[in-house]
Amino acid sequence: MRIESMVKPRSVAIIGASRDPEKVGHIILQNYLNAGYSGKLYPVNKEADSILGIKAYPDISKIKEKVDLAVIAIPAKLVPGVMEECGKAGVKSVIVVSGGFAEVGETELQNKLASIAIKYGMPTLGPNCLGVMDPRSRVDTLFLPTYKLSRPQIGGVSFMAQSGAVGSTVLDMISGEGFGLSKFFSYGNAAHVDEVDILRYLAEDNDTKVIVMYLEGIKRGKEFLKAARETTNKKPVIVLKAGRTSAGMAAAHSHTAALAGDYQVHEAAFRQSGMTVANDLSELLNYAKIFETEPAPRGGNVAIITNGGGMGVLTTDAIASSKRLKLASFSDKTKASLRKTMPSLVNIRNPLDLAGDADGKRYSDAMDAIKDDENIDMLIVITLFQTPGADSTVASSIIRIKESFGKPLIALCAGASYTQMHKIMMESAGVPVYDSPSAAAASLEATLKYSMFKKQMPDEL
Amino acid sequence: MRIESMVKPRSVAIIGASRDPEKVGHIILQNYLNAGYSGKLYPVNKEADSILGIKAYPDISKIKEKVDLAVIAIPAKLVPGVMEECGKAGVKSVIVVSGGFAEVGETELQNKLASIAIKYGMPTLGPNCLGVMDPRSRVDTLFLPTYKLSRPQIGGVSFMAQSGAVGSTVLDMISGEGFGLSKFFSYGNAAHVDEVDILRYLAEDNDTKVIVMYLEGIKRGKEFLKAARETTNKKPVIVLKAGRTSAGMAAAHSHTAALAGDYQVHEAAFRQSGMTVANDLSELLNYAKIFETEPAPRGGNVAIITNGGGMGVLTTDAIASSKRLKLASFSDKTKASLRKTMPSLVNIRNPLDLAGDADGKRYSDAMDAIKDDENIDMLIVITLFQTPGADSTVASSIIRIKESFGKPLIALCAGASYTQMHKIMMESAGVPVYDSPSAAAASLEATLKYSMFKKQMPDEL
Repeated sequence: MRIESMVKPRSVAIIGASRDPEKVGHIILQNYLNAGYSGKLYPVNKEADSILGIKAYPDISKIKEKVDLAVIAIPAKLVPGVMEECGKAGVKSVIVVSGGFAEVGETELQNKLASIAIKYGMPTLGPNCLGVMDPRSRVDTLFLPTYKLSRPQIGGVSFMAQSGAVGSTVLDMISGEGFGLSKFFSYGNAAHVDEVDILRYLAEDNDTKVIVMYLEGIKRGKEFLKAARETTNKKPVIVLKAGRTSAGMAAAHSHTAALAGDYQVHEAAFRQSGMTVANDLSELLNYAKIFETEPAPRGGNVAIITNGGGMGVLTTDAIASSKRLKLASFSDKTKASLRKTMPSLVNIRNPLDLAGDADGKRYSDAMDAIKDDENIDMLIVITLFQTPGADSTVASSIIRIKESFGKPLIALCAGASYTQMHKIMMESAGVPVYDSPSAAAASLEATLKYSMFKKQMPDEL
Repeated sequence: MRIESMVKPRSVAIIGASRDPEKVGHIILQNYLNAGYSGKLYPVNKEADSILGIKAYPDISKIKEKVDLAVIAIPAKLVPGVMEECGKAGVKSVIVVSGGFAEVGETELQNKLASIAIKYGMPTLGPNCLGVMDPRSRVDTLFLPTYKLSRPQIGGVSFMAQSGAVGSTVLDMISGEGFGLSKFFSYGNAAHVDEVDILRYLAEDNDTKVIVMYLEGIKRGKEFLKAARETTNKKPVIVLKAGRTSAGMAAAHSHTAALAGDYQVHEAAFRQSGMTVANDLSELLNYAKIFETEPAPRGGNVAIITNGGGMGVLTTDAIASSKRLKLASFSDKTKASLRKTMPSLVNIRNPLDLAGDADGKRYSDAMDAIKDDENIDMLIVITLFQTPGADSTVASSIIRIKESFGKPLIALCAGASYTQMHKIMMESAGVPVYDSPSAAAASLEATLKYSMFKKQMPDEL
């Protein structure tokens, strides 16, 4: 299905735009303006001549130019009539933000909406959804004000979610990270456009490096797995599915009227299709950022550099507990090179503890020494920014090495404002940063599994 | 051992205090001043007459008044001589910040330090440690500047760590939370005062509601378990032990020269002593905050209130995946009461989805309705602050109910600044706030396990 016009529309009609700042239609229009959308905007409202300084139209037929996208935010029972008008006016695509359909038992009304979409060949997202956000095209149909939901920066992670609430929470979480967003789709009840359509679109989208999805139910299971299999040959797909337990399934059913199905079957099928399965929202984000920036690892031998011994031990535990990872042994060449540049108190072993007075220079020397070691497939650089030596020279040295490292390199640090500042600095420069050894290990392992899948290597673990 | 004088000294000598702002002894003195310590401060420095405007002394014997605590930050080989002087001068307790002892092979030097401590009956913390912090007495021997390591507010969580680096990272992490600190001990090589002494002290300390510890090795295993058993009868003890794997053990050995021992034996013994075992730094904090404020649960029946269906499903999954928790069934009385106050679109079931327009009033009505339900042992209140209805009235209503709830009540929310603001608001008012369903479920389960331990109920899971 051609959903490009939803994501990169040259003109948008907002049906239900309102002068009342509390109304959804007002917030959507305001957010388009805030985002700096450069296409044509047409507020549609029976009573107003203009809204937020923009000429308004009483109905869609009165707009003389072509409309690429109509965003509909009016009471449910009025939606089918308005969609008919959109179809007749030649609107290219529709997003129905309004709720009040299958999720509250109004299946009939939802079917009517779907049949109008099919009749006019007019891709329709929703109903009961937040719609689309694309920071590049500056499309933002979300009816949530930016002070409540901060918008992420531009990046390579695309995210799709059935649930508007989970979708908005994840978007807001991403906005607090140093990595960025390509496209966001909240598709709600999926009356017409569904996860298969969105997945196929994102598979072809060059700005999307990683696809992340939150699912409650899947309507077309077979097509979905086929699309997933084709997509994972090109780019990583990470999935979190709600309804992992029978209690969760029952709750999911009540929420979007989707049948959750048996989770173990789903999970096995996801994995066979090369998808990375997350078990929690935090895992979704952790995996997204490593897949966005890191190359495929050749193996699971991990080197650890740290400025705090204890954190090195905890990270060693996390690596050794992981099924596919283990501590690398430094080559003789690496050891000799480290002996030359490290102060004598530094024990030349993995994890390499640079000590609490380590500055950017010592980190640089250590990373340079291990950079070309064939025994090392991945590197975790721990920086406790609380220690006396650590400052922004350490973050800079990690960013510098990263540019030519050629293997997965991630940073690990935890703490309050001084640490967070350096986290954002590193992530904005393309270094994924984790705040716990277990999250770091799980994320490295996820890239290794995906790399094995792509090389068609058996993974019986 | 009497370590009270370390934590609440009326006078502190800082040996190695320096006019050079880069030196450890300078930063320690500066931090005492910044913290607003009201006792007597005596910088000790051979060459300076005064440091940071405070009269300095060439050595400890020249201080005429009684010194409760000497903080020593001078090169390792000079420490035994200075400790002798402290002993002769009648100093009550000592903290040796300096490194360069057993952790770098200087076992002899460390033994000398211990024997002087014993000879003078002078409790000595360290060497190779950060020392002590107590935001009530405003003692702060940490040599890390506050811009790098934010200091936590006053609270009921006491934390002890062998590793200074892990200790400072956790302190910094706590400072970003809404809960606070009672005492912090970084005890380094534990040449004299060790985990048993600190545990026994914290067990008796009325300001300490929860004890949290990060361990690498344990010197006196039997005494430690005995002390733990006695402590957990009074208050919860949470432990994270590094060296869970053989690789981690090897790394731990190199770090503090402590023998990590077999982890599975340790873990079983910890659990039998009623300690709560954490597997990661984030778990340490998650458990600490629920134990600080929440009463012991009677059982594992959990009610969930949410303003986002998807988050309710994910949380249901987390509860149902947990071994000891399950979804509660609302009593008929609760259901009737909810039917009266909830709008018709709200489905009366657990999880209770209040919908995206729910405000503080709706949350209040829902919590009031379920408050006295005997079928409910614990409550998770999810608020997606991204949704249109959610604002500070929701946080206020949770805080209000909390005061008389009488059962564990925790909040769950995730997101950027608007959400973080409400998180801090709730946590400062004594409501533990989690950012993921799995963390919320694990923390509730930890309180249930501890409550079963205290009631001597069998727990074979």
